Amino acid sequence: MLEAAIIGASGYSGAELLRILTQRNDVRIRKVVASSSVGQRVDAVYPSFAGRVDLEYEPWDPTACANCDIVFSALPSGESMKIVPQVLDHGARVIDLSGDFRLPTAALYERFYKHTHTAPHLLGSAVYGLPELSRAQIAEARLVANPGCYPTSAILGLLPVLEDKIIEPSGIVITSMSGISGAGRSATLELSFSEVNENIRAYKIGTHQHIPEMQSVLARVSAMEVSLSFVPHLVPLTRGLYTTIHARLDVPVTSDELFKLYSQRYHHEPFVRVKRQIPQVKDVVYTNYCDIAVYAYASSGQVVILSVIDNLVKGAAGQAVQNMNIMFGLPEREGLY
Amino acid sequence: MLEAAIIGASGYSGAELLRILTQRNDVRIRKVVASSSVGQRVDAVYPSFAGRVDLEYEPWDPTACANCDIVFSALPSGESMKIVPQVLDHGARVIDLSGDFRLPTAALYERFYKHTHTAPHLLGSAVYGLPELSRAQIAEARLVANPGCYPTSAILGLLPVLEDKIIEPSGIVITSMSGISGAGRSATLELSFSEVNENIRAYKIGTHQHIPEMQSVLARVSAMEVSLSFVPHLVPLTRGLYTTIHARLDVPVTSDELFKLYSQRYHHEPFVRVKRQIPQVKDVVYTNYCDIAVYAYASSGQVVILSVIDNLVKGAAGQAVQNMNIMFGLPEREGLY
Amino acid sequence: MLEAAIIGASGYSGAELLRILTQRNDVRIRKVVASSSVGQRVDAVYPSFAGRVDLEYEPWDPTACANCDIVFSALPSGESMKIVPQVLDHGARVIDLSGDFRLPTAALYERFYKHTHTAPHLLGSAVYGLPELSRAQIAEARLVANPGCYPTSAILGLLPVLEDKIIEPSGIVITSMSGISGAGRSATLELSFSEVNENIRAYKIGTHQHIPEMQSVLARVSAMEVSLSFVPHLVPLTRGLYTTIHARLDVPVTSDELFKLYSQRYHHEPFVRVKRQIPQVKDVVYTNYCDIAVYAYASSGQVVILSVIDNLVKGAAGQAVQNMNIMFGLPEREGLY
Amino acid sequence: MLEAAIIGASGYSGAELLRILTQRNDVRIRKVVASSSVGQRVDAVYPSFAGRVDLEYEPWDPTACANCDIVFSALPSGESMKIVPQVLDHGARVIDLSGDFRLPTAALYERFYKHTHTAPHLLGSAVYGLPELSRAQIAEARLVANPGCYPTSAILGLLPVLEDKIIEPSGIVITSMSGISGAGRSATLELSFSEVNENIRAYKIGTHQHIPEMQSVLARVSAMEVSLSFVPHLVPLTRGLYTTIHARLDVPVTSDELFKLYSQRYHHEPFVRVKRQIPQVKDVVYTNYCDIAVYAYASSGQVVILSVIDNLVKGAAGQAVQNMNIMFGLPEREGLY
Repeated sequence: MLEAAIIGASGYSGAELLRILTQRNDVRIRKVVASSSVGQRVDAVYPSFAGRVDLEYEPWDPTACANCDIVFSALPSGESMKIVPQVLDHGARVIDLSGDFRLPTAALYERFYKHTHTAPHLLGSAVYGLPELSRAQIAEARLVANPGCYPTSAILGLLPVLEDKIIEPSGIVITSMSGISGAGRSATLELSFSEVNENIRAYKIGTHQHIPEMQSVLARVSAMEVSLSFVPHLVPLTRGLYTTIHARLDVPVTSDELFKLYSQRYHHEPFVRVKRQIPQVKDVVYTNYCDIAVYAYASSGQVVILSVIDNLVKGAAGQAVQNMNIMFGLPEREGLY
Repeated sequence: MLEAAIIGASGYSGAELLRILTQRNDVRIRKVVASSSVGQRVDAVYPSFAGRVDLEYEPWDPTACANCDIVFSALPSGESMKIVPQVLDHGARVIDLSGDFRLPTAALYERFYKHTHTAPHLLGSAVYGLPELSRAQIAEARLVANPGCYPTSAILGLLPVLEDKIIEPSGIVITSMSGISGAGRSATLELSFSEVNENIRAYKIGTHQHIPEMQSVLARVSAMEVSLSFVPHLVPLTRGLYTTIHARLDVPVTSDELFKLYSQRYHHEPFVRVKRQIPQVKDVVYTNYCDIAVYAYASSGQVVILSVIDNLVKGAAGQAVQNMNIMFGLPEREGLY
Repeated sequence: MLEAAIIGASGYSGAELLRILTQRNDVRIRKVVASSSVGQRVDAVYPSFAGRVDLEYEPWDPTACANCDIVFSALPSGESMKIVPQVLDHGARVIDLSGDFRLPTAALYERFYKHTHTAPHLLGSAVYGLPELSRAQIAEARLVANPGCYPTSAILGLLPVLEDKIIEPSGIVITSMSGISGAGRSATLELSFSEVNENIRAYKIGTHQHIPEMQSVLARVSAMEVSLSFVPHLVPLTRGLYTTIHARLDVPVTSDELFKLYSQRYHHEPFVRVKRQIPQVKDVVYTNYCDIAVYAYASSGQVVILSVIDNLVKGAAGQAVQNMNIMFGLPEREGLY
Repeated sequence: MLEAAIIGASGYSGAELLRILTQRNDVRIRKVVASSSVGQRVDAVYPSFAGRVDLEYEPWDPTACANCDIVFSALPSGESMKIVPQVLDHGARVIDLSGDFRLPTAALYERFYKHTHTAPHLLGSAVYGLPELSRAQIAEARLVANPGCYPTSAILGLLPVLEDKIIEPSGIVITSMSGISGAGRSATLELSFSEVNENIRAYKIGTHQHIPEMQSVLARVSAMEVSLSFVPHLVPLTRGLYTTIHARLDVPVTSDELFKLYSQRYHHEPFVRVKRQIPQVKDVVYTNYCDIAVYAYASSGQVVILSVIDNLVKGAAGQAVQNMNIMFGLPEREGLY
């Protein structure tokens, strides 16, 4: 039996972790921490858990996680780095769903996140938790930086062609459309139903904090400088994330050859499905799958890659559980659908 | 040329008034007042007005409306009653879209609105602005209390059978489903997209402030005590309001006879359409129509009435403009679709 | 290991059965039958099953289910009664999700379903599969008639007050709002996105085939004639069903007393949650729960009951699995969330 | 008074033409033709027109439009070219909303539309009806080919930078997201609500018939060969179209300079708004506006252009009315919002 805690458990990622973990018999959630809801029962904040989760939100306390095997932090970026060092000091392993430990340097972090990094000493040892890229390191890690939702879809879409140097590493165009739950659980006018419904809008062009995450991981994969343009859009659905990528082919290749390349690259991956048909959000919601299709266009010399996930599952809580399974030697699909 | 002002112009009803009135050549909007957005251009708050509305939100000032013919107040209930007396004193006529002047007594108001009425002296002279009920009085009124969205649909649905004493005035069951814009423009978690989308929920059962409004108007119409149960629901669409009413027949009558009764009652009404087919929201959005169907069920002795509007148009701004047209002797359909 | 087959597996209820059953280790789906998709792989019709379901749709064949323990029929009403007798003859037990075996007499069936009943001899032995009402009989049944979605919500909402004779059994008003998946998987203009989105409409008032189902079950429960008016509405969401019921109190009772009555009645039920707060669709989607709240209004002498389910789970496939669990002596919650 | 007819009036574009034109006093719709609905009243097919449109759908008849000044064809591509020559022969001017007369050659047409062009002699004289590009020719035209929805947004987004040779004309990446009404009024499974809602999917990558339309117009504008990749996506809203374009800068330029360039280029255009803020669908629905923003990224050497319209208005019926206004010397904004 794994003993687990969730810090920052009252947001959507925290709730999704609860949804997934409470269906298992081999994990016990000892504690849920959420400063904004201290003293409230989980099923008062999320009535869907009535009859299933018998816990109350607790305040943060450094000794809180002393006897836990694994602690998930679903705190916002900037908050997570304040508690993660303490949790590690008390002996638990940590999967951090925030952006705080995903970038290689504090300087890069501070440029995009707009605040000082208070735990830069951990950046070197944190493992970027994309199993398809770093399974072995994740297995050994004490601190896993769970990837962002956009980077998960974009990196999985680009891995095979960058690893095999099939595309130019510069001028990659990544256009994403995200469901609104990706923006978190918050009371803001711009996320209110009447503003979002029947609407589409781009946001944070050129400034999104996921840009350096994609760029640094992809640079590592390709051992080359990678330059990309990333434009995320909010579209009116709750869950789901669709990423459409354009890149220039460096070597002549057909769609069939790319299909084979991707199929081989992901052959043993339990949660990546390479498709001949155009993927869609509907096929992955409430699952941990990433569905990918890739097409070459000889005439324009471009490749088009489509990569689709549920932002709350493979893009957050599901991938965190996949990482936990790997870290503790459990079957990787355990508890995931 | 009518000179108009809108107080409380930054909410959805205020913006809808702007949308409707700025398409007219015979009305000039001199001033838009909105405390929360003072100094901002209208098209900064609502970019849809770029190139069409060249105004800035101004602070409230009692002399502000001195030279206006008509002032619309789209302030929240409780706020409107503070400024309406001053506007009247300065000579303008007023259409108030809040609930502040719709009820016959301050006591009833205070029971449902939970605060003191500060202008009870105006309750006697305010005219309830449902043209289908009180066209002549509206034409003469200095203060029109524009009806609530739920009451508009429910009262228009019930008028003919209550006026003709065809149903029992007690035990009327009114179930409504409203689009989310009806809840106003506000930054609250419970109106956020991720909470509202793919969701349905009832709210304010037995306590909604539109209950006394319906009850007092219907009692006046029928010259009898009216008792009703009202359950409103929020459903995931932006605009539209669907009201389904059950009542017990007091006299035997067929669906055909009811269709004729309703057709006659509303024959000269420009914005009520009596239908044989089941009405739907889609047919009335962005219009000032109320679509109504009525069916008698001899076996159960019940009548079912369906009444559908756009909550922002016939349920708010459109009806306000219809009232303005009546008050100033303009063609009633002018500027309305 | 239970051996199962699904007939009519290409519709939404069939796909939901697959989604639920393929997550279990103790049930093997031997066969999926769907005339319209014969020869296609399940994951070609539903790409979400790629990597999880390795089956092809087969044509119907009377010997097809010879070695199955349990056969689910998710065929449309009218089709199911043609194959169910043959399946029973070959020895399998059947859970029928259609309306074909829910009504007590062929005459009543033919009046509402508008075609002849071809297997009336089975109506007597079919057990209405609402576990909260007939658990013991379900356990023994060879043919279970799985309840309709609207009746599931309405009957669970009304059971306690009718069993205890707290409300008048006549004049019950049932207003329901359903997600669109309840209308099935079909290529019709009126279910197309552009017609349904941002729309609300009532349908089949007084003629819906679920009316006699509710009426006959509720009459049995209360040992009285029950008369009700039922108005279903389509609202723009995919999953979820909200039922709001009004009835007249026969005995004076408070909301608190009703809460206790319902809590006791459903105390041992694994999938009914009695709530003090107003329930919402969001809390039950993708689960087998029915959330219920009940309020008494002394002034109007009425009770308001709210009952909410996921139409595809507790309203169809989930309840079918719950019935299967009961029929085969498995833990009732097994495989259900 | 202009005398007008609409052929193919029962689809969404036809209905939108009716919605716009019936609000005018200077246009009379003499006739609506729709083979699939012959004999039905317009308000039986579209109940929203009850009380406003007193017409019946008629069958096609070559003499039908003899006395019309202007005939709109909203027939599907492939159908329109069969009737347009006859209409022209009878003396009316034509605005064709299909794709039949938008491409320069029959060969190109046949490659993308997959059927033979039966009126190639008209391709030379048909004027591509984008007012911002060809106002003078439209004024004189007897046959206007009304642009497609995607090309309208993409071409307006690219015009200034291509005319001024600021970007490379090759490798342009156009990613679009469209509301579902763009797919037309049709009874197909893939457009049904349960399939589209909470879903996103790309379609027709590299094969969409709007590709040669964009390419040929943009080549003409830039007097260079243009190569582009176009990926359209369906997202769950009814109206609205969002186009996000990436291109490589050929000359160094800042966002501010681009803003000025676009502002000057479109200064006198009544329906193009150049924005500093990121545009959104919500600001243009039910209007004829195209909202555009453009940003330069020196580091990556790329420009990002956002261009947003209502696919049924500026992307179809509204632009057709704008063209009509130009053709008949009426104020260009007349009847358009």
